[in-house]
Amino acid sequence: MRALALTGGVGGAKLCFGLAQILEPDELRIVVNTGDDEEFHGLYVCPDLDTVMYTLAELSNPHTGWGIKNETFATLSALDRLGQETWFGLGDQDLATHIVRTQMLRQGNSLSEITEHFCRHLGLGHQIVPMSDDRIRTTVETDIGTLPFQTYFVRHRCEPTVTGLRFDGSDSSEVSPGFSESLESSDALIFCPSNPYLSVAPILSIPSVRKRIEDFKGPRLAVSPIVGGQALKGPAGKILAELGEDVSCIGVARQYVGLCDVFVIDELDRDLADDVRNLGMEAVVMNTIMNNNRDKVELARNLLQAVTEADVR
Amino acid sequence: MRALALTGGVGGAKLCFGLAQILEPDELRIVVNTGDDEEFHGLYVCPDLDTVMYTLAELSNPHTGWGIKNETFATLSALDRLGQETWFGLGDQDLATHIVRTQMLRQGNSLSEITEHFCRHLGLGHQIVPMSDDRIRTTVETDIGTLPFQTYFVRHRCEPTVTGLRFDGSDSSEVSPGFSESLESSDALIFCPSNPYLSVAPILSIPSVRKRIEDFKGPRLAVSPIVGGQALKGPAGKILAELGEDVSCIGVARQYVGLCDVFVIDELDRDLADDVRNLGMEAVVMNTIMNNNRDKVELARNLLQAVTEADVR
Repeated sequence: MRALALTGGVGGAKLCFGLAQILEPDELRIVVNTGDDEEFHGLYVCPDLDTVMYTLAELSNPHTGWGIKNETFATLSALDRLGQETWFGLGDQDLATHIVRTQMLRQGNSLSEITEHFCRHLGLGHQIVPMSDDRIRTTVETDIGTLPFQTYFVRHRCEPTVTGLRFDGSDSSEVSPGFSESLESSDALIFCPSNPYLSVAPILSIPSVRKRIEDFKGPRLAVSPIVGGQALKGPAGKILAELGEDVSCIGVARQYVGLCDVFVIDELDRDLADDVRNLGMEAVVMNTIMNNNRDKVELARNLLQAVTEADVR
Repeated sequence: MRALALTGGVGGAKLCFGLAQILEPDELRIVVNTGDDEEFHGLYVCPDLDTVMYTLAELSNPHTGWGIKNETFATLSALDRLGQETWFGLGDQDLATHIVRTQMLRQGNSLSEITEHFCRHLGLGHQIVPMSDDRIRTTVETDIGTLPFQTYFVRHRCEPTVTGLRFDGSDSSEVSPGFSESLESSDALIFCPSNPYLSVAPILSIPSVRKRIEDFKGPRLAVSPIVGGQALKGPAGKILAELGEDVSCIGVARQYVGLCDVFVIDELDRDLADDVRNLGMEAVVMNTIMNNNRDKVELARNLLQAVTEADVR
């Protein structure tokens, strides 16, 4: 079985870690949102790609889910001393990734090639690929104005009220070669428990992606990042509410109508299974909360079981 | 009195610190060699400029004379993990300087403007300026081939035998605006105790500089970096020998014939004073070894005294 996982950062990365413990490198390709990418101090930062890489390499900070464990911030302090804005907390180890990525981009390498280079040096066998090698910028329309994603997310701590989202550059972008190949050759597609607006929508904004997922030949699963009416992490609940959607797994499920055959909800949301089915998707109930590596592997195993049992098309 | 100090890294920086404790900001301009500059990991590094800046800001590592005190190397370790060559030991705090410099260069700022920006943020009143805003690369011809300066200096620890030196790019370079202005307006010129081949020769390689120093209207002093037949720091002695020159303050003094009125030698070399005079320069003897801040200020004070007493032109 060959699975294609679509993911954002922290929550999705946890599931990808679980999948990577079960599936062989040639059985899994992980496609990552790059709409959050931003330049800081002239360095090109890809937060979601890095979170997935660090999580699979077991380098990630277990307390935050992003960044590197045992990280220090000496360069950031020195950047502050030199008059730079330092609201985006780049760690010393993490900076090496951005320094090398920036150098390799300037040398003409694609983001796909650079990510492959990193994975090789971090000893990762599984393929992690950006959704696109082109620059797509998630831009957040809010009550205080239009903000670049990281300005909204980190600088303003998601406090402004969201009125809309744009994915600047997506019109002229193309899917990365690895993503494109995987859409053709994979047997199953898994939407990881990522923010539907901030992590999945940018992927879907790339021309042809929505259509190709609608036409995908195998079972398509999605895992709700909202459990018991709350986001497990991040602003998904707040944004669902601000955009007039139910703050529940049903609000998430509605985003996947036509794109997903099996919608996975948590045990806590068991009573909403029929509402999922009413949207035209199969509903599968399981524990989706991942507090440790065992939870991640367990969820991955149960999802792959659901894939093989999916009665679709 | 307005003094113009020409300097390389560690030894010269110590004297500049001393001068800056005595002279007001508008009485001193420090012009720094940039022939050692190199890109590492896509970041633009100016070792001598940074050493002078850090020394004046009292940030420098007192044990090495270069780098920043209490420095850590987390980014370098992570760069190594990502497959980068890490023989040039960039510290975490130091990296902030190179990151900001690279960003500002890409934004179109000159090295002079960037250095001024750094000095302002480090609270330095005295002007530190690069010898040129153009790229001049010191290149070392050796028995194992032609090497970029840092490859010779750091990677090969100055071990290859030097057969010649080139300053690539100098033919088409110009002096920086601050250097040019200072050559016109200063009352005295001080060659700091820097390596004549590696630190001073690149400055002299810029078109018109040698002529303008020959024509300089005030007293010109040079301080020998060779004391008692040995370099106080670095490969000056080894290079003098390899290029067939005396490994003594006289070997250094010969490099300054026509450029210098007063040659300052250490008490240890008192018996060579007449040899200096035979080269057509006034010889002044004083302690030139700087082991602490008091020594630096003392040497600066004695040099400035020698300047005022210089009986030249």
